[in-house]
Amino acid sequence: MAVKVHGSTYSSATRRVLACLIEKEVEFEIVPVDLMSGEHKKPDYLKLQPFAMVPFVQDGDFSLYESRAILRYYAEKYATQGTNLLGKNLEERAQVEQWLEIEGQNYQPYIYPLVMQLMFFPQMGKTADEKTVKENEEKLAQALDVYEERLSKSKYLGGDFFSLADLSHVPLTHYLVNGTNKAYLIKDRKHVNAWWEDISGRPSWKKVLEF
Amino acid sequence: MAVKVHGSTYSSATRRVLACLIEKEVEFEIVPVDLMSGEHKKPDYLKLQPFAMVPFVQDGDFSLYESRAILRYYAEKYATQGTNLLGKNLEERAQVEQWLEIEGQNYQPYIYPLVMQLMFFPQMGKTADEKTVKENEEKLAQALDVYEERLSKSKYLGGDFFSLADLSHVPLTHYLVNGTNKAYLIKDRKHVNAWWEDISGRPSWKKVLEF
Repeated sequence: MAVKVHGSTYSSATRRVLACLIEKEVEFEIVPVDLMSGEHKKPDYLKLQPFAMVPFVQDGDFSLYESRAILRYYAEKYATQGTNLLGKNLEERAQVEQWLEIEGQNYQPYIYPLVMQLMFFPQMGKTADEKTVKENEEKLAQALDVYEERLSKSKYLGGDFFSLADLSHVPLTHYLVNGTNKAYLIKDRKHVNAWWEDISGRPSWKKVLEF
Repeated sequence: MAVKVHGSTYSSATRRVLACLIEKEVEFEIVPVDLMSGEHKKPDYLKLQPFAMVPFVQDGDFSLYESRAILRYYAEKYATQGTNLLGKNLEERAQVEQWLEIEGQNYQPYIYPLVMQLMFFPQMGKTADEKTVKENEEKLAQALDVYEERLSKSKYLGGDFFSLADLSHVPLTHYLVNGTNKAYLIKDRKHVNAWWEDISGRPSWKKVLEF
């Protein structure tokens, strides 16, 4: 039975889950959630995702939300199927977890407002707030300086293998690079840029973009 | 060989790691990092924690940072020692991971500024910003409404067992309840308060507070 992914194909968190399922060769179907009409705030939706966010998955009678928790579940459930996204032992997995946490705590908090302000606000007829953009650009640049150092010594964030840590960065970085005027944050850092070209060039991500 | 925890016993992230190591009966020693003098921003420190944050651990020649990644590593490495903090199967672990993510993405982002503004700012001679307090109080209250619903049906966040998801909430909630005038956010919610009394009453947390 295919995994049902309730979400929006424009949402970065939904895209993160889709990329993972494709890498793990797990059959799925997308159940569209109409964010514009507020479907995610209606009682039926809140029964399964009480924080009113996308995505959540249904897998038989098992239901789960929070995109990074979903990634971990499928990476572990299908450990020997598709791409190994967790490393070969506890120490490799720990490095993957470290950089997956960094993505959630030190990368998304800065890149998300940039993408919102510079890409989605104009589409909604809203004006970006210069101070918000400047503050988050500075913080993202600081984080990316650490990434540059890390990626000068390691091909991927978690080690010499592609993992959940890399995958989790792709959706918002795609919007930053292709939908804003801040692509230079990635492009001007040699090792970050090589990493970005690599991870965004994977067939799984190209397939996500087709939805 | 004891695990070296480089951190500050006042830092919520350091306390999270200490509580976990105690629950898992792992021997450790604390290597104090003097945040006031900026020790965490010095080159020697940045070699091991390039984001200039506490804590990080050294375990023989293995080094790791990001508190929740450290929790996962020790919970899994010593799966059969001390308290089982991950559940009995993949689906239970997935629920633990879901609520551990919620703590990082939907709880800490609101409770941390409240604690900073209302507890640490006065200690530093700074004045709390009313707008920041109001906004974060509202968002934390919204999240806690979902917790109340969850905890009316389940003794702990991840299921009927104490786990990393609960443990991870303790340090900042302790500061909110004992160091600010916003304890009502916890106390006025029947099931949240019962859960709080339970998880903050564990011997592991009492031991953390002795450091």
